[in-house]
Amino acid sequence: MKTKIGVLDTTLRDGAQSALVSYTVKDKLKILDILDALGIGFAEGGAPAAITKDEELFAYLKRERVRFRTLKPVAFHSTCREGVAAREDELLRKTVSLSDEYVSLYGKSSLAQVISVLRTSDTENLRMIADSISYCRENGKRVIFEGEHFFDGYRNDPGYAMQTLVSAVNAGAERVVLCDTNGGSMPGEIKRVVREVCKALSVPVGIHCHNDCGLAVANTLFAVEGGAVDVHGTFCGIGERCGNTDLCTVIPDLQLKMGFSVLPPDRLRLLTGSARRIADITNLAFDERAPYVGGYAFRHKAGAHIDGEEKWSAAFQHTDPAQVGNSSGILISDQSGRAAVAKRLRELAPGTDKNDPCVTELLARIKNEERMGYQYENADGSLALMMLETLGRRKRYFELLDFKIVLSDPTKSDVLTGCLLKIAVGGSEALVASEGKGPVNAIDLALRKALGGFYPVLEGMKLTDYKVRVIDSDAATAAKVRVSIESSDSRSVWRTVGVSTDIIEASWLALCDSIDYMLSAADGLV
Amino acid sequence: MKTKIGVLDTTLRDGAQSALVSYTVKDKLKILDILDALGIGFAEGGAPAAITKDEELFAYLKRERVRFRTLKPVAFHSTCREGVAAREDELLRKTVSLSDEYVSLYGKSSLAQVISVLRTSDTENLRMIADSISYCRENGKRVIFEGEHFFDGYRNDPGYAMQTLVSAVNAGAERVVLCDTNGGSMPGEIKRVVREVCKALSVPVGIHCHNDCGLAVANTLFAVEGGAVDVHGTFCGIGERCGNTDLCTVIPDLQLKMGFSVLPPDRLRLLTGSARRIADITNLAFDERAPYVGGYAFRHKAGAHIDGEEKWSAAFQHTDPAQVGNSSGILISDQSGRAAVAKRLRELAPGTDKNDPCVTELLARIKNEERMGYQYENADGSLALMMLETLGRRKRYFELLDFKIVLSDPTKSDVLTGCLLKIAVGGSEALVASEGKGPVNAIDLALRKALGGFYPVLEGMKLTDYKVRVIDSDAATAAKVRVSIESSDSRSVWRTVGVSTDIIEASWLALCDSIDYMLSAADGLV
Repeated sequence: MKTKIGVLDTTLRDGAQSALVSYTVKDKLKILDILDALGIGFAEGGAPAAITKDEELFAYLKRERVRFRTLKPVAFHSTCREGVAAREDELLRKTVSLSDEYVSLYGKSSLAQVISVLRTSDTENLRMIADSISYCRENGKRVIFEGEHFFDGYRNDPGYAMQTLVSAVNAGAERVVLCDTNGGSMPGEIKRVVREVCKALSVPVGIHCHNDCGLAVANTLFAVEGGAVDVHGTFCGIGERCGNTDLCTVIPDLQLKMGFSVLPPDRLRLLTGSARRIADITNLAFDERAPYVGGYAFRHKAGAHIDGEEKWSAAFQHTDPAQVGNSSGILISDQSGRAAVAKRLRELAPGTDKNDPCVTELLARIKNEERMGYQYENADGSLALMMLETLGRRKRYFELLDFKIVLSDPTKSDVLTGCLLKIAVGGSEALVASEGKGPVNAIDLALRKALGGFYPVLEGMKLTDYKVRVIDSDAATAAKVRVSIESSDSRSVWRTVGVSTDIIEASWLALCDSIDYMLSAADGLV
Repeated sequence: MKTKIGVLDTTLRDGAQSALVSYTVKDKLKILDILDALGIGFAEGGAPAAITKDEELFAYLKRERVRFRTLKPVAFHSTCREGVAAREDELLRKTVSLSDEYVSLYGKSSLAQVISVLRTSDTENLRMIADSISYCRENGKRVIFEGEHFFDGYRNDPGYAMQTLVSAVNAGAERVVLCDTNGGSMPGEIKRVVREVCKALSVPVGIHCHNDCGLAVANTLFAVEGGAVDVHGTFCGIGERCGNTDLCTVIPDLQLKMGFSVLPPDRLRLLTGSARRIADITNLAFDERAPYVGGYAFRHKAGAHIDGEEKWSAAFQHTDPAQVGNSSGILISDQSGRAAVAKRLRELAPGTDKNDPCVTELLARIKNEERMGYQYENADGSLALMMLETLGRRKRYFELLDFKIVLSDPTKSDVLTGCLLKIAVGGSEALVASEGKGPVNAIDLALRKALGGFYPVLEGMKLTDYKVRVIDSDAATAAKVRVSIESSDSRSVWRTVGVSTDIIEASWLALCDSIDYMLSAADGLV
């Protein structure tokens, strides 16, 4: 029987401390769904008493009675303030009232921090911990206690650090978490200390690490060897400074290398896709070198390695990439690439074999366009249109005849951008003008105005997301951009993509694909 | 007396196996100089017998009699081919003739690899190792032997793995290196195996790790604990798949955390600058989250952390950033408080107290603008301008008089976007036209053209990064975007930001701030 290790994801809370990361409520809801699909147990959603957007998130979860399959959202807050009874601490009360079932409270476990930063006494800090947890328990909440600066505290005063945990457990905390807040501890020390803590406490012990010494993953693994049964971390290792423990690394390390049970194997296979989707929502460039989930994680450049792999698949591969939903070689040019493409084509043309010329053509095209900066893994709509084209079934719904945009001084905010658009549909023409907030919005409005008369079904289409990613940002304002658009009607959601050095053209391409996809769907082609 | 740990840099050899990395000979020479200035002992320059550019590099080093202060360039090659005497193996001969003093030879230490990939016998592999090393020694070279797949080999057949090392040492290798070629080993195992090897051999033992399990740094540290005295790695952890051990992390870990002596302290302080310079030469985006050397490595966003640091500088800092040539700082955001803002203001107005009215005004302004979608944590340039404004010291360098952009059908790729721009500087006006790849590039070019005559200093300014983030992506094409621009001159780097529903306006605002910042800096205002 393998030991089960639980996961507490803090992408949405500690991850949001990362420079460059700023989530909307909707972003957070999407990520919670992804974590739930992976089978993760807990997710810190944020600090609802301190941050307005997190308050909205928790209020929404409560109001809409959102329930997940396995995931428990956790509201995060500190213990009550010094000299204030927990029940009179407004922010703590707010946290309790906004949380559903679980609250995680952090308190200081380092006496030096208590004295120098909190500027209070050892006993008052213990009172704050116990009182806050009791208050949560009295109000029906389940409590996870996070000992901030635990390892630094233990190094200087192990007795006091332990006392903070004991106070928490005696007050009703059902799990404790040991935090290496500054990220400066070493693996051997972490393991030794965790072992001591596990001996002394009766509740599950968790580990929360930071990557300031490049050791967040190692420290987490050593804590588990020492007896920790909950691991904290974030997707893609986002977090303040150098980031938190990367769950995309630590989960497969624990499960595939060390023999623990973290996720069911069929969920583990969702890891690569989930990591990419979360990076996408976070609007962070995905780290293609990331262990296990990165696009390069199992890809070789050295000729000798490629040759070695041909002879013996395990020669230069430490584990089977399929276990985490990744693949080796060049995704779109190897056999599994053909098989995957054939599988997709069979959705439109049942019976397509992987040696079909259409497979070869589509693969060549994908490969070529990905070199130009396209990315189809998140552009099902554009991919479907390319498949239709390869099969000779794509319909052209309109033709662009003319197009002009006039922009004046953008700093005069009352001046909108004007667009003139002329299109042909069959034998008819339409010439329309539009005004929008910026050029992309103006084109969007003009295109709908011009096509609406011919295709009333487009009225049901909504653009629900618009993202811009600079691909080669070194080229500064002449850089290539990739525009991704998400559209939906009452039945489905589709995503399309456009790439150009000109953001207007990239947006135009993605918009046209979005409309073409919807009309193709209405015609039963996709 | 601290134990001395040597460094063998392989940025130019194994690092060049990284996807996207491709060095010119000149790049390699520049990097060798940087490594030498740091006081590093060895650098693998490449594989001169196998790669033309590396042949040129070594030929140049020999022809020009290039000598470094501490650095020894090392030529890399495999042992001789199966069934061929070393002295008759052309590539090995070429390696020997091109190398100056040191050669590193890799051979297989795993019996399974010998059988399945080399497809030769256990004894022939040992012959290849010994014969190749003897040949190098006879030709006056000093030899480092790298045992490929050593740990995988040791796991399955420790006796054979040891025999490969013993053969190498008996033939005259003066150092051996144990390679975790596939990156799948765990720290505890590495330490145990290294300890066994160190017991059995009389020569210095080195360690070469890969990051496939996110453990390259930890594995290297554990090898040193086990007795290894040479660490292999690359700058910024570049390398095939998930990369090699990151020397920027492992050097300070060894020296500052574990008490070994790696570099003289005054050289260690060059680490941050060297890492940035190498990333720049490598043409890789520098990882700002990198431990020790990243721009965010010692920067905080959470208000509680900033407040804590004000009270006690070590509160949220695991080590003093000055030791590696980095600095701490504060990411100003809507999560920061008066203390953080006052600290930043003191950079321009020493003595500013956190209760100063300027602090109140600046904080209110930051919070208000962040609500509108601005983000100042990565926009030091825009923040500095706002600070100048609050202090009543901001200078206006130009006035926008008129502005027109004309865009035609973006899908006709030969048509550039035209921009007309009219500005006033003092009593003079400038009217210019420009053509660019898309509207943002056109404005950028026009603005520089118009201002260049008034402010020649702008010629030294380069836009080095341009990023677009859609803020409320639910509003689709009418969504707000945040444009972030990174600019630099020969001395420094600054970042500015603009927000609008119109990408043109957002870009305009960020561009103007970038220019204003540079001119303010030239005037000594910031």
